[in-house]
Amino acid sequence: MTTTAGTPIDSANGKLVRTQGVTAPLGFRAAGIAAGIKASGKPDLALVFNEGPEYAAAGVFTRNQVKAAPVLWSQQVLKSGRLRAVILNSGGANACTGPGGFQDTHQTAEKLAEALSNWGTETGAGEIAVCSTGLIGDRLPMDKLLPGVTEIVHEMGGGMSGGADAAYAIMTTDTVPKEAAFHHRDKWNVGGMAKGAGMLAPSLATMLVVLTTDAAVSAEQLDKALRNATRLTFDRLDVDGSCSTNDTVLLLANGASEVSPSQDELDAAVLAVCDDLAAQLMADAEGVTKRVTITVTGAADEEQALIAARAVARDSLVKTALFGSDPNWGRVLAAVGIAPITLDPNRISVSFNGNPVCVDSVGAPGARQVDLSGADIAVLIELNVGDGTASVRTTDLSHGYVEENSAYSS
Amino acid sequence: MTTTAGTPIDSANGKLVRTQGVTAPLGFRAAGIAAGIKASGKPDLALVFNEGPEYAAAGVFTRNQVKAAPVLWSQQVLKSGRLRAVILNSGGANACTGPGGFQDTHQTAEKLAEALSNWGTETGAGEIAVCSTGLIGDRLPMDKLLPGVTEIVHEMGGGMSGGADAAYAIMTTDTVPKEAAFHHRDKWNVGGMAKGAGMLAPSLATMLVVLTTDAAVSAEQLDKALRNATRLTFDRLDVDGSCSTNDTVLLLANGASEVSPSQDELDAAVLAVCDDLAAQLMADAEGVTKRVTITVTGAADEEQALIAARAVARDSLVKTALFGSDPNWGRVLAAVGIAPITLDPNRISVSFNGNPVCVDSVGAPGARQVDLSGADIAVLIELNVGDGTASVRTTDLSHGYVEENSAYSS
Repeated sequence: MTTTAGTPIDSANGKLVRTQGVTAPLGFRAAGIAAGIKASGKPDLALVFNEGPEYAAAGVFTRNQVKAAPVLWSQQVLKSGRLRAVILNSGGANACTGPGGFQDTHQTAEKLAEALSNWGTETGAGEIAVCSTGLIGDRLPMDKLLPGVTEIVHEMGGGMSGGADAAYAIMTTDTVPKEAAFHHRDKWNVGGMAKGAGMLAPSLATMLVVLTTDAAVSAEQLDKALRNATRLTFDRLDVDGSCSTNDTVLLLANGASEVSPSQDELDAAVLAVCDDLAAQLMADAEGVTKRVTITVTGAADEEQALIAARAVARDSLVKTALFGSDPNWGRVLAAVGIAPITLDPNRISVSFNGNPVCVDSVGAPGARQVDLSGADIAVLIELNVGDGTASVRTTDLSHGYVEENSAYSS
Repeated sequence: MTTTAGTPIDSANGKLVRTQGVTAPLGFRAAGIAAGIKASGKPDLALVFNEGPEYAAAGVFTRNQVKAAPVLWSQQVLKSGRLRAVILNSGGANACTGPGGFQDTHQTAEKLAEALSNWGTETGAGEIAVCSTGLIGDRLPMDKLLPGVTEIVHEMGGGMSGGADAAYAIMTTDTVPKEAAFHHRDKWNVGGMAKGAGMLAPSLATMLVVLTTDAAVSAEQLDKALRNATRLTFDRLDVDGSCSTNDTVLLLANGASEVSPSQDELDAAVLAVCDDLAAQLMADAEGVTKRVTITVTGAADEEQALIAARAVARDSLVKTALFGSDPNWGRVLAAVGIAPITLDPNRISVSFNGNPVCVDSVGAPGARQVDLSGADIAVLIELNVGDGTASVRTTDLSHGYVEENSAYSS
């Protein structure tokens, strides 16, 4: 197993599966129901509940200055490094909804705290994170959401089914739910679920990820593992590190396994799950017909390699060429050339799926005949100025993408 | 008449027309022929010739680090601040073609110098700028280009027809030639032609512009006028200031009018022509169905307003929404929110074609019903943090754009 960043994960340490998600670790329950937020009647409310005995948690949030109410709420709550539950809704982003929207989020957390307390688990609203995804600018239908919050607490099940229901309920334009779990040989686990489907323009395609682990670790350890993993996976899924108003990645730990892995072991397991979820997000991106990896090597440093890879991954002309299975390497060079990095304009080499198409900034023989008709395209760009390397996952720019995103206020 | 940047041009000073181009000023000849570079047999070679008595010139070139051979050549030639002629070809960019490609450019200039000298005008290769546009990475067919250079010198005509032929010969995916001329009431003139059609991603859609004037002005005055005009027009056509490998804007003056306008008068006239050519470029952008102007006001300063306007103009989700005539203002807020500028996330207001859709970051009544079915959309974003204002012209992201740019190596 190899991660996006090329870091090897020793598979002797454990096993990664896609058949389980947030309820793979011990002591986590989850549920997903249709509360009536979506007009379609599809599932739209999810709950992830930590049974303890510990409640350590960490989070990574959107860097967008325009933050949705649930992001503002969850950031505040997480200052304690502690979470007992996460409630997530699809069908509405609750972003750009003013003070009223923030109150809706607050009320949702209060309602869940009340329901959990009635159910027998004394919980405060300050131990509950809230996530929302959907159209920006509309208030949530609280008359449907609040009764749903009470209902979902009763629906919570243990085992695999609860996790799958939750993963299904957070979908928007996703076509499939995304789950992954890593079972460490030392009998502790990391599980996760994700949603997000507009990877061509992550500036607005909300990504929600909830990760759970039964390892006995501190909030600080979780924070370190989560930041490391998101930097190498979700942040390099496409593009520019830009985020929607609602992007949220949460990691909850309960110590139920009674195993305390080292930081390195935790980092590797969280990275493995995030890397697999990121691959699933790319594969299900809106309108995708090609799964593309842009790798830049020989940059001055890793940061510059990443800037260059992102510049190419964002370039509409490169993306449309790949949609057309066109080995148009000139567009790759032009995209690299506008990246604000150190370059030798005469020493750039490019290969598509291992076939050299440009050597030292001049076309290679047969470059226009390279077959890119398959669904996977690996673009390798060698800058020949240093040792920096980075990869970014992206997709093509297709008719399907235009179609899906030009539909009325979706 | 008002420019993109809102600078008023006193129409009492003169008249802007689109029926004339580079040969509108006195003492310029031009021609356009089919030299056989394009497989289609369409015109592909253009010449603009300055008859004097003066030969002052200025140029602005791509900021792409990967520069085509003709850009490297013309930059060098222009260090003298003097040009006698410009030879332009479509059908091939002569970019990423190595030392051989640079020699092709040099040989083209030498050939033109020879042909002009034989024709009776002693000219050196160092007085000739070369521009190319087309696919990156292929060598030009010099066996066709060089005889074409000799032929075109004989084709040069005075008057309007030569300018129109030249404007036609530089087209690639343009559907119409672009010309504009400003006739100053004091009997001096500025003319221009432009090509470029991929405005959604100017990172690769080569823009070539040649401007002429019969004003008696120095190379320094030309340089000042040209930089001022391109900053406010072509640089704000879409996007991010990024450029193709071949982008070139040239301004030639011959003093034939024997009028020496002030710097302000020259600036205004050059700006008027550039502004009109930029509008024509936007209107003919690949796959365009909407002509969009993004204006940001109330930014900390002009630079931040421009950064914000570009961020919105580049956002694929905003562009696809506009293609769908969808007043999805939430995508505008999300795009602004990721711009690296000073923001008050709760004080952003947006209007579409004068209809408020978002006030203080919350949706306005009726926002989802605003009719954007027309071809022109004005997006106004008020940040409420300062006095900075800037506008960027862009287009929607349509099926036509994807279609045109996914065609095999175009």
